[in-house]
Amino acid sequence: MAVPCTPFIASENLSTPSSAPSLSPSPVILSQDELKKIAAYKAVEFVQSGMVVGLGTGSTAKHAVDRIADLLNQGKLKDIVGIPTSKQTHQQASSLGIPLSDLDTHPTVDLAIDGADEVDPDLNLVKGRGGSLLREKMIEGAARKFVVIVDESKWVPYVGASGAMPVEVVPFCSKYTQDCLQKIFEYAGCVAELRTLSGGQPFLTDNGNHIVNLFFKSDVGDLRAASDAIHRLPGVIEHGMFIGMATAVIVAGESGVTVKNKP
Amino acid sequence: MAVPCTPFIASENLSTPSSAPSLSPSPVILSQDELKKIAAYKAVEFVQSGMVVGLGTGSTAKHAVDRIADLLNQGKLKDIVGIPTSKQTHQQASSLGIPLSDLDTHPTVDLAIDGADEVDPDLNLVKGRGGSLLREKMIEGAARKFVVIVDESKWVPYVGASGAMPVEVVPFCSKYTQDCLQKIFEYAGCVAELRTLSGGQPFLTDNGNHIVNLFFKSDVGDLRAASDAIHRLPGVIEHGMFIGMATAVIVAGESGVTVKNKP
Repeated sequence: MAVPCTPFIASENLSTPSSAPSLSPSPVILSQDELKKIAAYKAVEFVQSGMVVGLGTGSTAKHAVDRIADLLNQGKLKDIVGIPTSKQTHQQASSLGIPLSDLDTHPTVDLAIDGADEVDPDLNLVKGRGGSLLREKMIEGAARKFVVIVDESKWVPYVGASGAMPVEVVPFCSKYTQDCLQKIFEYAGCVAELRTLSGGQPFLTDNGNHIVNLFFKSDVGDLRAASDAIHRLPGVIEHGMFIGMATAVIVAGESGVTVKNKP
Repeated sequence: MAVPCTPFIASENLSTPSSAPSLSPSPVILSQDELKKIAAYKAVEFVQSGMVVGLGTGSTAKHAVDRIADLLNQGKLKDIVGIPTSKQTHQQASSLGIPLSDLDTHPTVDLAIDGADEVDPDLNLVKGRGGSLLREKMIEGAARKFVVIVDESKWVPYVGASGAMPVEVVPFCSKYTQDCLQKIFEYAGCVAELRTLSGGQPFLTDNGNHIVNLFFKSDVGDLRAASDAIHRLPGVIEHGMFIGMATAVIVAGESGVTVKNKP
């Protein structure tokens, strides 16, 4: 299902929304955070009054949540129900006065907006380096449209090219599960590492689980086959590959905003 | 990999181990618990000194754990390391003095022995009505041989024929996951129910998760396809179908013990 995005190419002039940060036609250096904000504001243009909206997690999605709250406060949006994808986003949205619910009460989400750690040429994503991949996948998987917002540094030639692909695993014998994961992707030079905090203790997700980060030396190939292989391991809960889920990806770069729709 | 079981058919005379409860040639009515004990004692014949043994959970597996402890105390078995599949079995085995470890320390299990709620004609199992399916699947999946011990009431024509097929799910929005599970198996007349305690609150597994029980009105068909479909739901951790995992099934019935090896 395509979002009502107008595809732009990076070199075209962008008619930005009046309230969004403006892109000057003369060369300026925009910070990564400014680029994230531009992508986030663009995505929020697709939010309409009455919608159930999945609220993403992370530094880019945070701008979208801020923007939705602003428009609600200005009366430009009404009757929005937000479904937060993490405790962190729940706290942010709640403090900004956005009415919140969950999937149990609102099983159909009209639109979800979230950032990503990587986007490949087929709009497959890596998410979860912030640690909230499970709730994100549940909520974004329930969304009729899922708009991803990134700065241009997130483009990668293949999944895992820029860093970790996180996998949420049960704490029970997570070392064993970590070893099994590494073996599955031996052919791609995989190194599996338990995510830890500065004190060395395991990082815990919002659901009380561990994260095993997979580092690939090369492309793992068929992503759906890789996904099934991971899911079949009994200790695994969910992984950070979001395959074929994005309806559109909004990318903000030095030269403008690009909207790429699902092929 | 076949276990060194001698296949018996129910009508043959069984040469039972001398220390196991004897089967009288004249008709006697054995209780279900006595049948479970016969199957359990038969399985423990395959335990050898020095083995790492996966210790199952439930009323049948309990007899096997008792038996292993007896043989250790009698000096007939030595250097056994037990890997318990639940907190309950950990407590039982520990109180009986069986040395215990886990998959992180012993990633290869020589032999696992456990009961099952159902066994189909291809030796596929339903497990987890007791609630410990995840740890059981991790440990039994790591076992070189997995011997299942049941009384004859556990034979079913297809998976789910006698009752619930349990699925362990994350507590976050488990109602939503429950509805998704029911939809996947709509074609088999599936009814999905959250397992609750007598007070109505959700049952919690050893891992702090919920159980959704799936009740099928008819055969779900291709079990591996069904398994993958369940695993692909983001809120699911593991399900109770143990497909192609059993090396042998020891069945105790009124007329004797049958050992069925993996086809």
